[in-house]
Amino acid sequence: MNLKTIGLLLLLCCTQWLHAESGYELWLRYQPVGEGALCEAYRLKNRKVMFPGETESLVAARQELQAGLKGLLGVAFAEAAALEDNVLVVGTPQSVSSFKKQLFYDEINGLSDEGYLIQSCKMEGKKVTVIAARTDIGVLYGVFHYLRLMQTNQPLDKLTITENPKLKYRVLNHWDNLNGTIERGYAGYSIWNWERLPSYKEQRYTDYARANASIGINGAVLNNVNAQAKSLRTDWLVKASGLADVFRPYGIKVYLTAKFSAPKEIGGLKTANPKDPQVRQWWKDKVKEIYSLIPDFGGFLVKANSEGQPGPQDYGCSHADGANMLAEALEPYGGVVFWRAFVYQNERHVDRVINGYNEFKPLDGEFGKNVFVQPKNGPIDFQPREPFHPLFGGMPGTPLSLEFQITQENLGHAGHLVYLGTLFEETLQSDTYENGKGSTVSKVLQNYQKTHGISAIAGVPNIGTDLNWTGHLFGQANWYAFGRLAWNPDMSSVQIAEDWARMTFSNEENVLSPVLKIMLMSRETYVDYTMPLGLNHIMNYDTHNGPESWHDDPVWTAFDYHKITKDSIGVDRTVDGTGATRQYHSPVCEKFDDIKKCPPEYLLWFHRVPWTYEMASGKTLWDELVGHYYKGVNEVRLMQAIWSGLKGKIDDERFNHVASLLKYQEREAIWWRDGCLLFFQEYSGLPIPANLEQPRHSLKYYQTIPFPHDWKGLYE
Amino acid sequence: MNLKTIGLLLLLCCTQWLHAESGYELWLRYQPVGEGALCEAYRLKNRKVMFPGETESLVAARQELQAGLKGLLGVAFAEAAALEDNVLVVGTPQSVSSFKKQLFYDEINGLSDEGYLIQSCKMEGKKVTVIAARTDIGVLYGVFHYLRLMQTNQPLDKLTITENPKLKYRVLNHWDNLNGTIERGYAGYSIWNWERLPSYKEQRYTDYARANASIGINGAVLNNVNAQAKSLRTDWLVKASGLADVFRPYGIKVYLTAKFSAPKEIGGLKTANPKDPQVRQWWKDKVKEIYSLIPDFGGFLVKANSEGQPGPQDYGCSHADGANMLAEALEPYGGVVFWRAFVYQNERHVDRVINGYNEFKPLDGEFGKNVFVQPKNGPIDFQPREPFHPLFGGMPGTPLSLEFQITQENLGHAGHLVYLGTLFEETLQSDTYENGKGSTVSKVLQNYQKTHGISAIAGVPNIGTDLNWTGHLFGQANWYAFGRLAWNPDMSSVQIAEDWARMTFSNEENVLSPVLKIMLMSRETYVDYTMPLGLNHIMNYDTHNGPESWHDDPVWTAFDYHKITKDSIGVDRTVDGTGATRQYHSPVCEKFDDIKKCPPEYLLWFHRVPWTYEMASGKTLWDELVGHYYKGVNEVRLMQAIWSGLKGKIDDERFNHVASLLKYQEREAIWWRDGCLLFFQEYSGLPIPANLEQPRHSLKYYQTIPFPHDWKGLYE
Repeated sequence: MNLKTIGLLLLLCCTQWLHAESGYELWLRYQPVGEGALCEAYRLKNRKVMFPGETESLVAARQELQAGLKGLLGVAFAEAAALEDNVLVVGTPQSVSSFKKQLFYDEINGLSDEGYLIQSCKMEGKKVTVIAARTDIGVLYGVFHYLRLMQTNQPLDKLTITENPKLKYRVLNHWDNLNGTIERGYAGYSIWNWERLPSYKEQRYTDYARANASIGINGAVLNNVNAQAKSLRTDWLVKASGLADVFRPYGIKVYLTAKFSAPKEIGGLKTANPKDPQVRQWWKDKVKEIYSLIPDFGGFLVKANSEGQPGPQDYGCSHADGANMLAEALEPYGGVVFWRAFVYQNERHVDRVINGYNEFKPLDGEFGKNVFVQPKNGPIDFQPREPFHPLFGGMPGTPLSLEFQITQENLGHAGHLVYLGTLFEETLQSDTYENGKGSTVSKVLQNYQKTHGISAIAGVPNIGTDLNWTGHLFGQANWYAFGRLAWNPDMSSVQIAEDWARMTFSNEENVLSPVLKIMLMSRETYVDYTMPLGLNHIMNYDTHNGPESWHDDPVWTAFDYHKITKDSIGVDRTVDGTGATRQYHSPVCEKFDDIKKCPPEYLLWFHRVPWTYEMASGKTLWDELVGHYYKGVNEVRLMQAIWSGLKGKIDDERFNHVASLLKYQEREAIWWRDGCLLFFQEYSGLPIPANLEQPRHSLKYYQTIPFPHDWKGLYE
Repeated sequence: MNLKTIGLLLLLCCTQWLHAESGYELWLRYQPVGEGALCEAYRLKNRKVMFPGETESLVAARQELQAGLKGLLGVAFAEAAALEDNVLVVGTPQSVSSFKKQLFYDEINGLSDEGYLIQSCKMEGKKVTVIAARTDIGVLYGVFHYLRLMQTNQPLDKLTITENPKLKYRVLNHWDNLNGTIERGYAGYSIWNWERLPSYKEQRYTDYARANASIGINGAVLNNVNAQAKSLRTDWLVKASGLADVFRPYGIKVYLTAKFSAPKEIGGLKTANPKDPQVRQWWKDKVKEIYSLIPDFGGFLVKANSEGQPGPQDYGCSHADGANMLAEALEPYGGVVFWRAFVYQNERHVDRVINGYNEFKPLDGEFGKNVFVQPKNGPIDFQPREPFHPLFGGMPGTPLSLEFQITQENLGHAGHLVYLGTLFEETLQSDTYENGKGSTVSKVLQNYQKTHGISAIAGVPNIGTDLNWTGHLFGQANWYAFGRLAWNPDMSSVQIAEDWARMTFSNEENVLSPVLKIMLMSRETYVDYTMPLGLNHIMNYDTHNGPESWHDDPVWTAFDYHKITKDSIGVDRTVDGTGATRQYHSPVCEKFDDIKKCPPEYLLWFHRVPWTYEMASGKTLWDELVGHYYKGVNEVRLMQAIWSGLKGKIDDERFNHVASLLKYQEREAIWWRDGCLLFFQEYSGLPIPANLEQPRHSLKYYQTIPFPHDWKGLYE
C-alpha cells in the first residue's frame, strides 16, 4: 500500500465520518480517543481480553466491548488464552470460574442482582483489570461503565469501582399509542412498528436497548397510560413478545398499561368491578397468558379514574381495591403494578394542587406488597418548575415510584434546549423532612427498598422516529440524565451533563466548557421566559407550548392558576388559603407558608402577591417579573452566542442543527415574554421600562395567532 | 504518521463504515470504486474540475460532485484554473462563457429546460469532459448522471450523452396528513415536521431533495388527496414555504392538495359553488397569497366528489367546471391543476371498472389548458395487476397524468419484496392503439407534450420516517424506478433495476446477479400468491393486506370482484357483460373480449370462467389457479434461497434486514394461498392435489384471525 493510497483511504474515512453525524448513535459514539499518551495507556490496558461465556447478555456485552475498543482505540479484540499482565478479564463466577479463588470473590457475592465491580488487581500474579458481577446483566452494566471511563478520558489504573443501583425498578413509561402516534411525543412517532412485529425486528429496537442498558434502565412500558384495551389481546401480546425478545439480553423488561375496563372491552364480561370474582379471574387468566408469552414480563402501569380513563371508583371501590386486584394476579410471577397518583378529572377543583395528596394519603398502607403508587414529581403536571409532590414523605406505608417527564411537554417540546438534569436533581434533593433533616425525595425513594424491599422511578421518554431519536440533539441529554439518576438518584446533574457532553461531543475543554455552560443555564432560562416566580399552567391549552395566560373556559381556565386582578397575582395556598402548604412536613410547611421565607421561585405558587410588593431585591413584584421575562430572552441570546463559538470545533451537521433550533427558541422566548407581559399589564397597568426592547405586537396579536403545533391533529 | 497509526486509522475507517448501513443513504452511497484500473481511469478523468457559479442549484450540484468524487474515488476536488487535458468542465453558457465558442453550443441551445449533455470533447485543444446545460437545474441533473456512470462502473471516455426528460411534470403525490400520519404509508410517518417548520429545516428534507433530483423528480404534492382545508391557511402556507426553500435548489416545486370546500371551511363563505363569483375570487386571492409566499408554487392536486371528498358535483357542476375554476386562478402564475379521475363514491356500482371512463370521457376537451386529468394506472385501484386504464388513449383532447402507486398498499405493504419497475413498465408499454399500433400508454403521455405543450406523471411514494426511508430496503428501488421512468417512460425496468442494484449494493457480479434475479421475479411472484389470473380486490377490507375474498358487506363485497359460485369465478366484462372491453380501442377490445385470446393474466378480470374450463396449458382453471398460488409461495422460498447466498457478500445489517423480511413474506404468502384456496374450494368443491403441502388451518381460522396491521388506528 503506497502513501497515496493510504491518504485516499484516510480521506474516505473522513467522508464517512462526516456523514454519520445525524445523532443516531447517541452517547455510544465510541469516537477515537486520539493518538497520544492516553490512547497508548488505554491500548496497553486492553491489549488482550478474557471474556468467555455464551449467554445472550454476555454476548451482547462482548459485542459492545468489541465495538467500543474498535471505535475508541482502533484495536481489534484479542482474546487472551491465559492470564498475563494487562489482560482485561470480564465475567461472572459462572463464566470465569477462577473468580471464585480471588480476593474479590466475596465482594462479587455482596453485589446486588445488577451490581458490578471494576478493579485493577492481580490474578495469579498478573496485573489485570477485572469487570465482574454476580449476574450477566451486571457484567453488561460493568462493560458500559468501563467504556464510559475511556469515553470520558478517565484513567484506567487503580480502578476500585463498585456499583449497585440504588433503585430497583428504573422504567421508561412510553406514551406510545398503538397506531404509532405518541401522546406528547415531539420527536416523530413511535419506534415500535406493530405491523411487522413480532417477526420483523428493526435495528432501532436493539439500539434502543443498548442505549438504555448503558445508563441502567431496566424496564419499558410500551404503550400509553391513556390506554387501549386491545394491547392486552393475544395478537398484541404476541407482538409485544417480539420486543421483549430483543430487550431481554439487555436486562430490560417489558411492561404494558392495563386499561381497567379491559375485562368488558375485550373479555366479554358485563363489568370490570374489582370485587367481581369473574373479573378477578379474568385478570388472573390474562396475566397467566402474558407470562406464557413473555416469561419475564414486568407488570402493569395503570392510569385509573383520571382524565376519562375507567377505574375502580366507577364501581364504588378505591384505588387500592383496583391496584390490589391486578397485583394479586401478577404476584405469583414476580410482576408489579405501577398505579398512577395523577388523578385529575378534567373538572375545576378548589385547588388542583392539593387533590393528589388528599386522594391517596388516606390509602397509605392499603396497597399490596407489589404495588407502587406513582405521583409525578410535582403536584400539578410537569410544569417547568414545581415544588416536590407532598406525597413524597407522606406515604411511609406505601412504596412510591416517582414519575418524571423527559419529553418536554411543557418545556418547549423538542424545539427548546432545556437540560432537565437540574430539574430532576432539584426534585430529588428536595428535603421532605419526613424523618427530620436530610429526608430528601431521593432518600424517601431509596428507603422503600429497606422498608418494603422494592423501590422505583419512572420517566416518560422523548424518544421517537427522528433520526437523532429525540428531535433536539440536547434532548438526548435528558434521556441520559434520567437513566443515570435512576441508577443513583444522588448523582450531581452537573457531573451527568459533563459525562454526556464528553461522550456526545468531545473531551476538548474548548468544546466541553461552552456546551456545559449552555446546558446548566438552560432550565432556569426556560423558567425565566415562560413561568418565573412560581407561575404555572399558563401555556396554550391544546399544545402546551406558547403563552396562553388568557385562556378561559369552563373546564380549564388559566385564571385558576394565576388568579390575576388589577391588584395582585398568584394563588394563596397557605394555611389561610387552600392549605396546600399544610401537606408538607414542618419546617417545609412553614417555609412555604411565610411569604418572607418562601423561596422566590415558588412565590406565586404559594402566595397571592400585590403587584407593588417589595421583593428581597428591593424591586417590586412587577419589576421583578418583567426582569425575569427579559432575562430569559437575553439568556437565550447568550446561549446562541456561546454556541456560535463552537463553529468549526464540532461537525457542521450538529452545529447547524442546534444553531437553527436556538434561533427558533429565541423567537418563541420573545413570544412568551411579550404575550405574558402584555396580558399581565392589562391588569397591573404598570409599564415595561422604556429602556427595554418593547413588544413588537399587541396583546390581541398574541391572542389570535395560531399556535404552531396542531398536536397530532387531535384538537381540530 | 507511522504504519501502525495508519493501520489503526484504517481500522477506524472500517468501523465507521459498517455503522453506516442503515439504508439511509439510498442509492447515493458513493462507495469506493475500489483500487484498480477502472478507479485510476476515473481519477484521471477527474483530476481537476472547472465548475464556476454561485447560484443555489450550481452550488448544490458542485457539493454533490465533491461528495461523489470523494466517496467514489477518494479524491478531493481540485479546481482547474485553466483548461488542460482531463479537466471536467461543468456549467451553463452563463456560468462558463467559453461554452459559447464551442461546437456543442448549438446542442446546448437545443436542450429543454431540464436537459443536459455530457460529452468527451476538446476545448481549446484540450481533451476534456463537459457537463453542460441551458439551465442550472440541467447541470445538476447532468452531475447526477455523471456520478451514476461511475457508481455503475461505466466508462468515462467517448461520452456522447444528451438527455431531455420526456415528460414535463414528474411529481410525487404524498398522502401525508397534517398530523404526521400517512394514508397508506408503511414506512413510518411523515418526514415533514410541521411543528418546527418553516424555521427549523431537518437534514432529511435536503436528502429527500437530493434523492429526487438524482432521478429527475421535479415536484412534490406535500399533503394527502383526502385533504384538510387548513393546509391552505396562511400559517400552513408559511410552513410549506419552508420546504419549498429547501427543495428549490434541487429543481423540485411544491404543490398542495386543494380541498374543494376550502372557501367555506377556512374562507368564511357560504358556498364553494364554482359558479359563484365570490368563490372564484376567493381562489384567486388564495392563489395570489400562495405565490407571494412560494413564488415557484407548482399548483393543486384535487380529489373531488370521490370517497366523501367535496366537489363541484355538490353544486350540479361538472369536474371540468371545478378544475377550470382553479386553473384560471393558477394560470397567471404558471401553476397547473391535477384533477384525479379516481372518482368512487363508496357505493356499489354495476361495475366499478367502467366508471372512471364513463365519467370523464364525455368531458374530453372541456378542461382548461393548464389542467391534467389524472387516472390511476388501471381502472380499479392499484391492484397487483390491472389492465391499463382505458382513459389512456381515450382522451385525446385532455392531457392526462398517469398516477402510479409506489407505496405498496395492495402489494404487501413494506413487508414484501416486490420490485414495481416491471409493473410500471407493463402499464407504460401497453398498447392503446389510439393511433394504430405503437400507441403505448407511454407514447400517449408523451404525445400531450406535442398536442398540448404539457405532459405529466405522478407517483404516490413509500417514503416515511423509517431509517431507510421506505421500510423495506427494496422499497427504495420502487421510488427509484418511478423517477427514472418519469424521466423516460420507455426505459427498461431491467436496466433500472440493474442501475439501482449496482448503486445500492455492488457492481460485483456475484452480488448483482442474485439481487436482480430476485427483483425481476418478485412482482409476478406476488401476483401468483395473492391474485393470479386476473383476480383482484380480494384483500382485507381495512388493511388492504392479507386475503379476505370472503368479505361481504353492503358497501364493499369481495363478491362483486370475483362473483364466485359453485360453477364459475370471474366477472363478465365483455360486450355481453358489463362492456368494459368496449372502452378499449380495437384490436385491444377484441383481444380482451375473446376468452381464447385474452391473456391469461387478465382472464378473470374480463371473463366469467367455469372451474373446469380448459386453459391453454391443458389444465383446468381450478388446477391452474392452485398452481399459481403454490408457485407463488415456492418462489418466495426460492427468493429466500437466493438471498441466503449473499451472506458475507454484503454487510450483515442489510443482509439480515432483508432475510428477516423474506421470512415474514413467506408466512404471509402461505396465509394468502391457503386462505384463498380454502375459500374458493368451498364453492368449487375441487381438491388441492394431495402431493402439495396442505393448508395447516381451516378456512374458519383464516376468516377469524386478526389482520396484523391496525391501519393507523382508523378502523377500530
